[in-house]
Amino acid sequence: MFAHNKRLQYTVRVSEPNPGLANLMLEQFGGPQGELSAAMRYFTQALAEDDPGRKDLLIDIATEELSHLEVIGNIVCMLNKGAKGRLSEAVDKEGELYRSITGAGNDSHITQVLYGAGAPLTNSAGVPWTAAYIDSITEPTADLRSNIAAEARAKIVYERLIALTDDPGVKEALGFLMTREIAHQKSFEKALYSIQPNFPPGKLAGRPEFASVYFNMSQGGPELTGSWNSGAKWQTVSDRDQQVDVDGGGGEASVELPAKDAELLQQMALRQQSNPSVDPLTGAELGMMADPGQIASASASGGPASGAKGLPVGDEVIAGQPVNKG
Amino acid sequence: MFAHNKRLQYTVRVSEPNPGLANLMLEQFGGPQGELSAAMRYFTQALAEDDPGRKDLLIDIATEELSHLEVIGNIVCMLNKGAKGRLSEAVDKEGELYRSITGAGNDSHITQVLYGAGAPLTNSAGVPWTAAYIDSITEPTADLRSNIAAEARAKIVYERLIALTDDPGVKEALGFLMTREIAHQKSFEKALYSIQPNFPPGKLAGRPEFASVYFNMSQGGPELTGSWNSGAKWQTVSDRDQQVDVDGGGGEASVELPAKDAELLQQMALRQQSNPSVDPLTGAELGMMADPGQIASASASGGPASGAKGLPVGDEVIAGQPVNKG
Amino acid sequence: MFAHNKRLQYTVRVSEPNPGLANLMLEQFGGPQGELSAAMRYFTQALAEDDPGRKDLLIDIATEELSHLEVIGNIVCMLNKGAKGRLSEAVDKEGELYRSITGAGNDSHITQVLYGAGAPLTNSAGVPWTAAYIDSITEPTADLRSNIAAEARAKIVYERLIALTDDPGVKEALGFLMTREIAHQKSFEKALYSIQPNFPPGKLAGRPEFASVYFNMSQGGPELTGSWNSGAKWQTVSDRDQQVDVDGGGGEASVELPAKDAELLQQMALRQQSNPSVDPLTGAELGMMADPGQIASASASGGPASGAKGLPVGDEVIAGQPVNKG
Amino acid sequence: MFAHNKRLQYTVRVSEPNPGLANLMLEQFGGPQGELSAAMRYFTQALAEDDPGRKDLLIDIATEELSHLEVIGNIVCMLNKGAKGRLSEAVDKEGELYRSITGAGNDSHITQVLYGAGAPLTNSAGVPWTAAYIDSITEPTADLRSNIAAEARAKIVYERLIALTDDPGVKEALGFLMTREIAHQKSFEKALYSIQPNFPPGKLAGRPEFASVYFNMSQGGPELTGSWNSGAKWQTVSDRDQQVDVDGGGGEASVELPAKDAELLQQMALRQQSNPSVDPLTGAELGMMADPGQIASASASGGPASGAKGLPVGDEVIAGQPVNKG
Amino acid sequence: MFAHNKRLQYTVRVSEPNPGLANLMLEQFGGPQGELSAAMRYFTQALAEDDPGRKDLLIDIATEELSHLEVIGNIVCMLNKGAKGRLSEAVDKEGELYRSITGAGNDSHITQVLYGAGAPLTNSAGVPWTAAYIDSITEPTADLRSNIAAEARAKIVYERLIALTDDPGVKEALGFLMTREIAHQKSFEKALYSIQPNFPPGKLAGRPEFASVYFNMSQGGPELTGSWNSGAKWQTVSDRDQQVDVDGGGGEASVELPAKDAELLQQMALRQQSNPSVDPLTGAELGMMADPGQIASASASGGPASGAKGLPVGDEVIAGQPVNKG
Amino acid sequence: MFAHNKRLQYTVRVSEPNPGLANLMLEQFGGPQGELSAAMRYFTQALAEDDPGRKDLLIDIATEELSHLEVIGNIVCMLNKGAKGRLSEAVDKEGELYRSITGAGNDSHITQVLYGAGAPLTNSAGVPWTAAYIDSITEPTADLRSNIAAEARAKIVYERLIALTDDPGVKEALGFLMTREIAHQKSFEKALYSIQPNFPPGKLAGRPEFASVYFNMSQGGPELTGSWNSGAKWQTVSDRDQQVDVDGGGGEASVELPAKDAELLQQMALRQQSNPSVDPLTGAELGMMADPGQIASASASGGPASGAKGLPVGDEVIAGQPVNKG
Repeated sequence: MFAHNKRLQYTVRVSEPNPGLANLMLEQFGGPQGELSAAMRYFTQALAEDDPGRKDLLIDIATEELSHLEVIGNIVCMLNKGAKGRLSEAVDKEGELYRSITGAGNDSHITQVLYGAGAPLTNSAGVPWTAAYIDSITEPTADLRSNIAAEARAKIVYERLIALTDDPGVKEALGFLMTREIAHQKSFEKALYSIQPNFPPGKLAGRPEFASVYFNMSQGGPELTGSWNSGAKWQTVSDRDQQVDVDGGGGEASVELPAKDAELLQQMALRQQSNPSVDPLTGAELGMMADPGQIASASASGGPASGAKGLPVGDEVIAGQPVNKG
Repeated sequence: MFAHNKRLQYTVRVSEPNPGLANLMLEQFGGPQGELSAAMRYFTQALAEDDPGRKDLLIDIATEELSHLEVIGNIVCMLNKGAKGRLSEAVDKEGELYRSITGAGNDSHITQVLYGAGAPLTNSAGVPWTAAYIDSITEPTADLRSNIAAEARAKIVYERLIALTDDPGVKEALGFLMTREIAHQKSFEKALYSIQPNFPPGKLAGRPEFASVYFNMSQGGPELTGSWNSGAKWQTVSDRDQQVDVDGGGGEASVELPAKDAELLQQMALRQQSNPSVDPLTGAELGMMADPGQIASASASGGPASGAKGLPVGDEVIAGQPVNKG
Repeated sequence: MFAHNKRLQYTVRVSEPNPGLANLMLEQFGGPQGELSAAMRYFTQALAEDDPGRKDLLIDIATEELSHLEVIGNIVCMLNKGAKGRLSEAVDKEGELYRSITGAGNDSHITQVLYGAGAPLTNSAGVPWTAAYIDSITEPTADLRSNIAAEARAKIVYERLIALTDDPGVKEALGFLMTREIAHQKSFEKALYSIQPNFPPGKLAGRPEFASVYFNMSQGGPELTGSWNSGAKWQTVSDRDQQVDVDGGGGEASVELPAKDAELLQQMALRQQSNPSVDPLTGAELGMMADPGQIASASASGGPASGAKGLPVGDEVIAGQPVNKG
Repeated sequence: MFAHNKRLQYTVRVSEPNPGLANLMLEQFGGPQGELSAAMRYFTQALAEDDPGRKDLLIDIATEELSHLEVIGNIVCMLNKGAKGRLSEAVDKEGELYRSITGAGNDSHITQVLYGAGAPLTNSAGVPWTAAYIDSITEPTADLRSNIAAEARAKIVYERLIALTDDPGVKEALGFLMTREIAHQKSFEKALYSIQPNFPPGKLAGRPEFASVYFNMSQGGPELTGSWNSGAKWQTVSDRDQQVDVDGGGGEASVELPAKDAELLQQMALRQQSNPSVDPLTGAELGMMADPGQIASASASGGPASGAKGLPVGDEVIAGQPVNKG
Repeated sequence: MFAHNKRLQYTVRVSEPNPGLANLMLEQFGGPQGELSAAMRYFTQALAEDDPGRKDLLIDIATEELSHLEVIGNIVCMLNKGAKGRLSEAVDKEGELYRSITGAGNDSHITQVLYGAGAPLTNSAGVPWTAAYIDSITEPTADLRSNIAAEARAKIVYERLIALTDDPGVKEALGFLMTREIAHQKSFEKALYSIQPNFPPGKLAGRPEFASVYFNMSQGGPELTGSWNSGAKWQTVSDRDQQVDVDGGGGEASVELPAKDAELLQQMALRQQSNPSVDPLTGAELGMMADPGQIASASASGGPASGAKGLPVGDEVIAGQPVNKG
Repeated sequence: MFAHNKRLQYTVRVSEPNPGLANLMLEQFGGPQGELSAAMRYFTQALAEDDPGRKDLLIDIATEELSHLEVIGNIVCMLNKGAKGRLSEAVDKEGELYRSITGAGNDSHITQVLYGAGAPLTNSAGVPWTAAYIDSITEPTADLRSNIAAEARAKIVYERLIALTDDPGVKEALGFLMTREIAHQKSFEKALYSIQPNFPPGKLAGRPEFASVYFNMSQGGPELTGSWNSGAKWQTVSDRDQQVDVDGGGGEASVELPAKDAELLQQMALRQQSNPSVDPLTGAELGMMADPGQIASASASGGPASGAKGLPVGDEVIAGQPVNKG
């Protein structure tokens, strides 16, 4: 069960309102690398986790991330506070409000007009948060690696936000939040390496003949090699013919079909064939003509099917007399 | 700041695993009317709220909803527990696993194959949760009405889930969660009606001449009237001519354009006109012909397959005048 | 069946083009609180509704909302009209076009470059409209409450848009649209309260022991109480121990597993355990070293499995001689 | 199998960095009409295609579109190159960085803060690419028409981007990409018209009595007719009574229900009826009162503050006539 | 303005309820090729259209598609009618309700549990409708092609639905709807070809040297050629060297950077280099060890930075004595 | 530039069609952990990468992942091949087609009805692929960690799919694809650890006083500690008072507002206050009454404002005589 303390984990002191900056801060509120992503990532992992050590770790950090969501949300709200009042109360001076909402350095219009200068769960572009950001698959050696990566990403986005403001109170709180990502990454690393072995992840071994092959798929320029694709641990394959059909089975796809299915597919193929032995007139070619009546549609004689007679319509067209005036 | 207690707000006792039922329970975990929606709805409103009474109410309930998210998540995980082990460890008996995942009464394959029999933030169809479900706009008389409606919806979905299971432990926990929605709705109602006046919401008054008009837009059958569209409080307009152009200004849309803009638009109009005075041959008409060579593309050399019959149709069409120089 | 009259329900007169303002107006066209949301909300409810009075009410208002969608769409198009011509025809003066599209007070680039200065079904941030905005669940006491809330929200967003423009024609049309939301809310209120009883929504009664409890989940600061959480109607629970495990069952989650499932889970737990009795070297710790060769990978001796011999590679590294040059 | 050549299909020469322009270019990278849409559209069609000619055509063009994705992606990255370094390294001069990211003519903040001045798969508004943009349905006469339309759209968006920049290298590369859309459209047209007949698409014929009817649904103003809705090929229906219930069956919807289902529905209808014979007091009406205590809630003790100043209405209630028994 | 007639455009007679079939029908209600997509596609195009003939055509068809949305929505609701009552009223017989909702041939659980057996704007998989399905770009020669393709797709999906049911009333109504797509396609074709020229779309001509080139990008197997890639109208390029760098500029991407930007990028490059001259020990290699203590973290000596002294910790590990017990 | 070879990287041999299994395979085609995610992840990183070694590595692997997308797509298409023909050609035997599409063990209806038994870019639940799955932020120490995690996740999902089928050809191809994820992970690990130092990621150091603190946020039950939260490297904080307001600044959020902004906020607060000193009658309380006329709306006397007279309506109610029959 969760409980709440009215005080924040870290004090938020904002020097002056700035809705443009508030909008950027949304990256760590409702953005993909933000605190809701972190909290929900660890919370849902904790629910399904059976290992008592990891379960406790995950719920500890999930709870802290919720508390960070509260801190960054308060930064957003404080930066928006002036805008909130103006939007709510000042209904007369339109030009001014329009300029304050759309002014240079300020892409906060969505935050304001739609969300009322609150703290919406969107990123700085107004894209609503989605659980598609969470990549948990309920396997600890994969999920812990995902968590390590997530903490690294969040650390970097905080670093960028810190570089974007001079407000000392905002900088300080962001510095706290950024540092906690470092600490969390350290915890997840310990938990991962405490599972041994943890590589390859999961239960099935790889097929040895393909596990140390490096396919040099991009060619035609300078190749820089390193420990990631060369040396004794790697078998590098650059020959194009050896990159394809690596099992030697022909490199084709096949399925054994019941006779009736095969028959239906054959019927479909005939019906839908693009006949390679003709060069048909196309819509695009019709569309290149300068005069819409140059080839006119068959009319009196009943439409194109009249073709058996040899497209009399064409003659009419040549006569320059558009047929159907509508 | 949030804190966490290892015990749940309500005990979860599941009689036997049932991944199909687990999947349905996701509606109240990561579905639109579920507990994450509720928790985030009130949490974000609390952040931006300036009224101390409402702020406290919102954060109280948000915290409880997070605790409910934990309860429903545990129901999901317990119902999935058997599937989790089988998926993780049983790699040999494929037919069996396939059947257990896709069997009748069980649409849990997405939960299992992708999410590993955990508790993903999706609804029962596998659609990821999105903040687009939250409709807060940072205005209390609107947001409180939204909260009242959200609690009513959540109550109903719980009612449906209760009807879907015989497991007494699940039923009991769902009954608790359902009841709390009732209590929360009562709180939000009190908070709304403690703002007075609260209708119409916001600051601007409506235009009196339109505020009590009822437009009877659907006609042609029996009309059943009630207090919502008839009686002394309503002016009902059924005459089609009085429903349109209600301001009497003509019912058209216009803009005063700078001369240069008007000129460009005129130029565009000419270039893009659909000429009503011709009946052009169309791609669809080409496509109705039985024989792809009936109208062949013009070209002296005849295209890739001009060979066989020599495109007689093409000749007819252009009467010796190649239309399309391509 | 729907029919269409070429005249608008309300005349649209725009004084001058302004694509920046057009973009903001999209909130009520393709935004979550906009007219498409309203029209589709009531239209789909009407389809499934069996009560003749409500069905008629819903389709009446749905039809009017479609007509409002047309009015706001015309405002958008009129404000964009100048931009449309320039974008379509003026291909030479690039700097000018770039500036006109990205200038201060104008976040309309998405509307223009992608949507050609038309009326796309997005909000002002360019987020496509989604049916996830519609919260109908086909239960009238819930859906009517949702409708009441939706009308309140739409009223407020119109109020904000009215405050953002000085154009008298735009203001007037927006005022009409705003007023109609008030009228619609009144109708939905009547329809809701004409169902009696309507609270709690649905058929199942709540569990009385939990229906009037208020859990004071947020503590540690001043508490402001009101009719929403105190007084004779509420039993307020502030003791943390009484907030948890309210049923007295222990507050844990459990499931009765078949023996075989339990066995597989046990096997999984052993395989995936994060061993608490070691302090493993982690990737992060490797990553903190100043010199990438400080601990080098085993090479000649065949990789990490050479560990049996006692990490000779480490010694080599210390000697400053990186092993694998790649 | 795919292979990669380190050289681009077309050389990219950018004169100077411009993150605002980079952002607009994203339309053709991760936008709906962009190169990823094109590549994936044709690639997935190729996979399911059984006609050898079309299969080859589709994979040829898919591969080229991937190569175009690489070209436009390089344009984006080159235009962002300056921003990337400043964002990564310049952590001291905040005001400057903030201004450079949010300056006039530059809506690239999302590209920079979240995506690090890389090439994210979003459109210029930051909306992530989605496979919902791809409309393939695995039927060649429909899919080829979709491809023709997609090429036409992509051509136009390139045209708009070309108009937005003066950089000759960018213009030249965009001109190449635009031209290729023209070539691709020509190929798809040939493939479509090589299927004969191709209209109507699919296998089922339409019902003749409805295939050439034009319903004039919008009336009440000048009607401009053309070959699309008038002439010998069309039967135009303007009479409103003939537009509705065109089969003459009554225009109603019905279902034959089992008796038990009908009974349950009847029960539901009674329970949920909006009673037309009363005019209930509503929440909105409560909300219009000036004084929140005008109608106070019933309760022996009067609620939290039943008291202080008199609340005459409350007194009446307290006077022993409880309205609301809870 | 829109008006509504209580009768449908086509009578809906359903023989018996079938929620599984109802679910499939959602494809044409809230699916990508469904009637909402059609109605909104044409309605929004109509709003922005300046050509009077097309504007009228578009709003006529949009209005009819709305009326079709109503027809298909009624089919869904009639097929769901039995389920609606059972879900709403039958709260006792759980097993039965669960089976009826999740039974074979019935993936309607999302429609029922979440949406109450109504008509939600989703496809048959429960994915909410999104305006991302609409590809309009406000250029008539592109948009009309998009409309032609959209009608073709909708026709095919109706054809598939017709094949899925034996209910004669459903088949008949679907046949009407399918036929109307044919009629609409014919109208849009006429409107497109009435613009002349309409190919290439837009205003800019392509670069002639690239407009008739076919790049044979997929090789290594049988090539089947047709009018789409061979013949006199095409210059086919199969030589891999001629496919790349077609402008002869080198095929590289470049940008001219201000000196300071270049300097920052150089600084970044150094800081972030993946050093190719070492073979570092990696996390994966740590993870392959059988014993988590094989390489333990440095402890007494102060963590990894103690490396200067030569990894004494490693020696301890080899002794099999894990150092930090935590 | 990309090129294509008609042969696959790995031969696909499917023993018999199985659309239910085809549907599950979509997880690795258009699902979040699938091959499109992989290919686009590395491709977009490669575009923005300035380090030559990593750039080459990324494009090599991106190209291989595209080739894997082709392999898995072919598996899907082969498994769907029978369904494709039946859907396209067999329009008569409806019951049979319906059963084959919705039968037990087969949730492929969306794949078939909407996507025509092709290979759509969705996951197995029909959710369209979205670039929101890609978490790249253009910083190598974060992105490489993300790549490592992504490979681990993909390996596991392949493992699950392998366990779900007995078809030896499918198993073999999946085994190849799974193994390649292992090889790719190894490469990314090498590239990450070749950047030194790589932890903490980015340029800014953390604040030392918070970098090794572990907040024990979840309490009230057994605590299991490990290297991740205890030992000499961690300072564990369990005291609730020390977890909050860790900077000692008070734990509140504040902003310094210009006087005018403060004034407007004060005005807003008064207008929107939820008055704690009254207990208002609420909509819910109205809704609990058994009889809709119990409190009826004021009518003859002009609506609720008639309250001045002391709720005459209330009297009527008590008399049990509903007032307004509407």
